[in-house]
Amino acid sequence: MSGREFFTARTLAEVRAGFRPARRTPVEQVPLSRALHRVPAADITAPAALPGFARSTVDGFAVRAMDTYGASDGLPSYLDLIGAVRMGAAPTVAVRAGGCVAMPTGGVIPDGADAVVMVEYTAETMPGTIEVTRPVAPGGGIVRADEDVVAGGVLAPAGRPLRAPDLGFLAAAGVTTVAVHRRPRVAIISTGDEVVPPGTVELAAGQVRDATASALAGLVADAGGEPVIAGIVPDEPGALKERLTEILAESDLVVVSAGSSVGARDETAGAVAAIGDIWCHGIAIKPGKPTLLAECSGVPLVGLPGNPLSALVVFGQVGIPLLWRIAGCEAPPPQPSTRARLSRDLASAAGRLDVVQVAVRDGVAEPIFGPSALLSVLTRADGYMIVPEPATGLDAGTEVEVILYR
Amino acid sequence: MSGREFFTARTLAEVRAGFRPARRTPVEQVPLSRALHRVPAADITAPAALPGFARSTVDGFAVRAMDTYGASDGLPSYLDLIGAVRMGAAPTVAVRAGGCVAMPTGGVIPDGADAVVMVEYTAETMPGTIEVTRPVAPGGGIVRADEDVVAGGVLAPAGRPLRAPDLGFLAAAGVTTVAVHRRPRVAIISTGDEVVPPGTVELAAGQVRDATASALAGLVADAGGEPVIAGIVPDEPGALKERLTEILAESDLVVVSAGSSVGARDETAGAVAAIGDIWCHGIAIKPGKPTLLAECSGVPLVGLPGNPLSALVVFGQVGIPLLWRIAGCEAPPPQPSTRARLSRDLASAAGRLDVVQVAVRDGVAEPIFGPSALLSVLTRADGYMIVPEPATGLDAGTEVEVILYR
Repeated sequence: MSGREFFTARTLAEVRAGFRPARRTPVEQVPLSRALHRVPAADITAPAALPGFARSTVDGFAVRAMDTYGASDGLPSYLDLIGAVRMGAAPTVAVRAGGCVAMPTGGVIPDGADAVVMVEYTAETMPGTIEVTRPVAPGGGIVRADEDVVAGGVLAPAGRPLRAPDLGFLAAAGVTTVAVHRRPRVAIISTGDEVVPPGTVELAAGQVRDATASALAGLVADAGGEPVIAGIVPDEPGALKERLTEILAESDLVVVSAGSSVGARDETAGAVAAIGDIWCHGIAIKPGKPTLLAECSGVPLVGLPGNPLSALVVFGQVGIPLLWRIAGCEAPPPQPSTRARLSRDLASAAGRLDVVQVAVRDGVAEPIFGPSALLSVLTRADGYMIVPEPATGLDAGTEVEVILYR
Repeated sequence: MSGREFFTARTLAEVRAGFRPARRTPVEQVPLSRALHRVPAADITAPAALPGFARSTVDGFAVRAMDTYGASDGLPSYLDLIGAVRMGAAPTVAVRAGGCVAMPTGGVIPDGADAVVMVEYTAETMPGTIEVTRPVAPGGGIVRADEDVVAGGVLAPAGRPLRAPDLGFLAAAGVTTVAVHRRPRVAIISTGDEVVPPGTVELAAGQVRDATASALAGLVADAGGEPVIAGIVPDEPGALKERLTEILAESDLVVVSAGSSVGARDETAGAVAAIGDIWCHGIAIKPGKPTLLAECSGVPLVGLPGNPLSALVVFGQVGIPLLWRIAGCEAPPPQPSTRARLSRDLASAAGRLDVVQVAVRDGVAEPIFGPSALLSVLTRADGYMIVPEPATGLDAGTEVEVILYR
């Protein structure tokens, strides 16, 4: 059967809005050292207020603010130095009217003080007497005990992948284990009688080594997934269906890199239709039209076009957002990109989204053309740009956004 | 001693141009499955030409191009169908004058043929006779045997981190193990009497949990390094020097997250000066001025400012490029960034580079202010922007580049 007869091509926007499988990976506890880019299943909250005590933000002297009012170079305030706060220790003295206590940045504000005057605006003119030449307002030079976060406040929100700074905030709050979605397991199946494993030293006539699986594994890892190279299935009736059935139980997402012949593509659609529901077969994107989206026993499946270049572009546009959603993140972090000026005119067909590989040098995007079967196009490119659906082309010099391979 | 007395502040540009330690990690062999983002030590070349045989880029019929010259809908060429090429197998027939062979996309071009006419421009009007309605030029519909890469050609250049598409190209060429620089081991030392490990449940007065080390570990991992949390050193004379001496032998880069008091900063400079050469102490960047750069027994060292926010910005600007260079990459991949319009006017001091944390929503960059001691600023921000040294400020509505936390 040919799925293409039953399904019309969807736009990328339709796919993103409409194909929203419910699958999410289960939640697991991981230490902070393994939590980078993982997605919290619920808001992570602070067990206690932070910093937990009023602390100085400057090197200087803890004072009663009112004792500095009106101070100037011409008419300084003179305060008695009655002690010093040591880093990491409780103050041993309190500040009384007319007194001050020496403070390191980060030190605990002693009782009685409501501000810290910076050392730059002071001088110890006589031993034991501090001259203050600028007034400070109450709260000046101080971070309140709950100013960073109140007890129970949100340290990191549910659904947003944890970034490096988040790990710092969590560590500061004493949260050393977090509940995050398990990394999605992504099975990558290759199909085609001509496809052999990368380790094949000598190729027989017509054979090609499996390039797409390794490249897809890289994209999956970059998006926080756990790639599982699930082997090469020949173009035999039933073979793909059998392999899919085996792999579904241990996968959160299945990616089928289809053979490039028409027969191989139809075989994929037939096998998927037999074990699941096809949501669409065909996306209005070039290259990449024969993309298949389906759900099989609750596991989303993406059938990719045969040539590696198309497969990677489609997986980036369709598979990566899906992968993040399965990991609990509805709004994936943006793919790295840069702006550049187009080196030449680009034609495009209206109503179809064109993807063009480009090299970027000194802010200029140079399109790289060539048969889409060529892998060298991909490695000469620094990324790709998208000529939007309504456009009929772009003029040289137009500023375009290039999605970078990273 | 105070290092600040002996060293003047450098600009970021001076640091990048001038501080170039020679250290590089040794080379190791890794399988393709672990090669993502690793840096090849030498050009990786193709053992043989790719694809290795002339292959069809379309579904259609292999022909002698001259047999199609002048063909049109009104006056088709008629060719004898003399066989079919099977995917992944050698052709069993050759194309002779007036003949054609059915071809799948990716199939081996049979002897005698010099072009493939697309199936869309053909019809099998009688069994065994193919009608061709468009001419095809020699080479049309064909990828040459060495068109992707010639034998000995470069698959991936030395010094550029391997991207997902590169892994595909290497797999296609049968290269399953690559010689890459070892991931740099980055020792992260925290200092300060007030600093305690993140696992500390109850804090005594004035104590803070070590936030910076966990956040730095995330940045190191993102840049391909292997973070080693090397503990917390108290502000005691000799303690930091002792710990540095221990850690140097097993590190490719040492990062010291300094205590935030003036005394702690001076202690760092003193310890480093005792065991290595200080290249600069002070960078004209706010926040982040008291940054220290040094080399100790051939190991580069970065001393970071005391508060976590400054430490992360400086490490991103100075430490990350250094880390990539140690891993063999002179031109690091750009950090992920986005363009956005500034929501409000921003002031800046001329001659100093200002770093401002921003949240980005719908293309608008909203600066987030607050004491630099607050970690919550970092986690509310989506990234940071840099107000360049010559600027004295930026107007609301200016398009700015935001470096994103990822």
